[in-house]
Amino acid sequence: PSSKLPDIGNSIFSVMSGLANEHKAINLSQGFPDFNCPEPLMQLVTKYMHEGFNQYAPMPGMPQLRGKISLKTEKVYDYLPNPDTEITVTSGATEALNAAITAVVKPGVEVIVLEPCYDSYVPAIRLCGGTPIFVPLTLPDFSVDWDLVKKCISSRTRLIIINTPHNPTGAVMTKQDLDTLASITDGTDILVISDEVYEHMVFDGQQHNSVLQHPALRERSFVISSFGKTYHTTGWKIGYAVAPAPLTTELRKMHQFITFCSVTPLQLAIADFMDNEAHYQELPDFYQTKRDYFCEQLKGSRLEILPAAGTYFQLAKYDNISDEYDLDFAKRLTTETGVAAIPVSAFYHNKTDNKYLRFCFAKSEDALRAAGEKLSRI
Amino acid sequence: PSSKLPDIGNSIFSVMSGLANEHKAINLSQGFPDFNCPEPLMQLVTKYMHEGFNQYAPMPGMPQLRGKISLKTEKVYDYLPNPDTEITVTSGATEALNAAITAVVKPGVEVIVLEPCYDSYVPAIRLCGGTPIFVPLTLPDFSVDWDLVKKCISSRTRLIIINTPHNPTGAVMTKQDLDTLASITDGTDILVISDEVYEHMVFDGQQHNSVLQHPALRERSFVISSFGKTYHTTGWKIGYAVAPAPLTTELRKMHQFITFCSVTPLQLAIADFMDNEAHYQELPDFYQTKRDYFCEQLKGSRLEILPAAGTYFQLAKYDNISDEYDLDFAKRLTTETGVAAIPVSAFYHNKTDNKYLRFCFAKSEDALRAAGEKLSRI
Ligand SMILES: CSCCC(=O)C(=O)O
Ligand SMILES: CSCCC(=O)C(=O)O
Repeated sequence: PSSKLPDIGNSIFSVMSGLANEHKAINLSQGFPDFNCPEPLMQLVTKYMHEGFNQYAPMPGMPQLRGKISLKTEKVYDYLPNPDTEITVTSGATEALNAAITAVVKPGVEVIVLEPCYDSYVPAIRLCGGTPIFVPLTLPDFSVDWDLVKKCISSRTRLIIINTPHNPTGAVMTKQDLDTLASITDGTDILVISDEVYEHMVFDGQQHNSVLQHPALRERSFVISSFGKTYHTTGWKIGYAVAPAPLTTELRKMHQFITFCSVTPLQLAIADFMDNEAHYQELPDFYQTKRDYFCEQLKGSRLEILPAAGTYFQLAKYDNISDEYDLDFAKRLTTETGVAAIPVSAFYHNKTDNKYLRFCFAKSEDALRAAGEKLSRI
Repeated sequence: PSSKLPDIGNSIFSVMSGLANEHKAINLSQGFPDFNCPEPLMQLVTKYMHEGFNQYAPMPGMPQLRGKISLKTEKVYDYLPNPDTEITVTSGATEALNAAITAVVKPGVEVIVLEPCYDSYVPAIRLCGGTPIFVPLTLPDFSVDWDLVKKCISSRTRLIIINTPHNPTGAVMTKQDLDTLASITDGTDILVISDEVYEHMVFDGQQHNSVLQHPALRERSFVISSFGKTYHTTGWKIGYAVAPAPLTTELRKMHQFITFCSVTPLQLAIADFMDNEAHYQELPDFYQTKRDYFCEQLKGSRLEILPAAGTYFQLAKYDNISDEYDLDFAKRLTTETGVAAIPVSAFYHNKTDNKYLRFCFAKSEDALRAAGEKLSRI
């Protein structure tokens, strides 16, 4: 049968994690922690399972969890979304992104996508018959060239997707970035998807600038986050979308037929655990310490570090070591050096190679030190 | 913004469960058990969480679970699918259905849908630009008129969706049905989706006839099931699709960008628990006893029972009680009589009313007895 996504192969995350396992390499490729989630969070799951909360959640999510998301949004972003009409719990941020894109994109529509970008945006757009319009982020700091974005807007543009803190580069949008996006979209019917799953990982005293803090922007936006990164539970698949009621109505129509609902005892456990505000308040320090530790280990290496402003990823340039294509270099690094990383070309539709690898530092100090030792030898 | 699914409102399951809760009615509407899943299954979840299995599963599913699904398929259906290339774990059967439909349906394609049918098939088809061709099941036993199916096939037909045991009617396809479907599709490029989530609920000594048992049919089919019904865990959202490798390749491309993966500790717990074959072997008796108990309670009522051959649903005709539209009658039954059921018109695209309500009997004897008492008064 002819494929609707002929160009899609195994995802780079599956490829590199697979290769890392096969060669017993230290896996700094796919983004997930190598340590466990908090003990009390697991105990809450056990409690709710035994209390019998193992049947369907309501389609938009457990009211307890939506309520807590609303309160947390007010606390952190000074904006109180309505849990009944503006918050939808999904099976990970991936489903939220898919549902938001599917709700908006029709055949003939154009969507502005800043590259490099996470690999699920573009296939979802194409499956809906939309056309991605690629705007490259500006090297070396991967900032947005808003003039270029503006030039790429046409009468068919219906959606702009942003991601801050940014995977894979760690770049963080400024308030000025959001103001500019707001003024560019002002008076248009262009919607925004803001992927903010790394919202609690911004370093060096900087703050995450959420679209939720921006009244002009949030009224046209789906803001998407997840608990996987914040609670070290990437395998629990609980994400959510915050959007104005009319947009939420459309997103829920998609969610209803994509998964209908997400795992009930996990939703309840997370809702309770959200009372522990210290957890996410301490997360920037927790991950900044890891980032700094990893960078320290790489001092002796010839990799050129670009310290991340946010996320648990860090880019490193290797062009003074090799001029190999980054995927080949990454594979060789895995099989020969014993450290797996993600080649950044995987985040470009035409596989642009800027000689960058992405390392995930959500790992134990032992793993980061061992990786640093190996990487210092190349 | 203009809606891509303008006709979709709140799902009938949300509407009726909501009304039931509001009026403290006995909720025999949405299909889920009112008892808990097996204790050892929950203990396994706790164990795997504490062992640290809380990060992403591989995109196709945990190998342990795919291996067990393969072995179970051989045991029950005498066919051993390849777990690496033919089995994909999804976030519930809903996601598997969505992924299979999205993988196959392109604009202009026609899909044959037997009505009444589960409410997620048609929106998924329409979102892909496909056209559902509705073939009504034949009253009073909701059997398939294969001649009619054949007449509805055109050069644009790309997919036929079947569901056995059948929600909402409880009808079960015979081997002859599958043979006929095989001969109808023989020599065409028509694919089949077989929704078999109630595979372990077939009564009165009958057997479930799975497409997986049918070599000619399974080579063109996505067979979809789930653990929600079998293990009393509708809120865990672990489903799967079995399909030949080329079809699985396409389905996984969709799954990768819909949710990427499903909940890791739940997958591992279910994989272990599947060793307990007695659980699903005893399920027909377990549910037949409930069905019979419920029917017994309804002896004194004026509802005309259609005992289910399968599923945990049972239809009842009410035309000698009222000529109200079934949705209105169901609402009144909830608010005035205190028993919630699903009006079967919700399963028809044009809301055809045949004066049937669907009752879920996956409930405690207390609930079924109390419902029976109330229903005997109308
Ligand atoms: C769903 S696997 C990809 C995980 C991730 O977010 C990343 O590594 O970028
Ligand atoms: C996902 S809610 C619907 C549950 C169900 O399968 C049914 O009641 O038919």
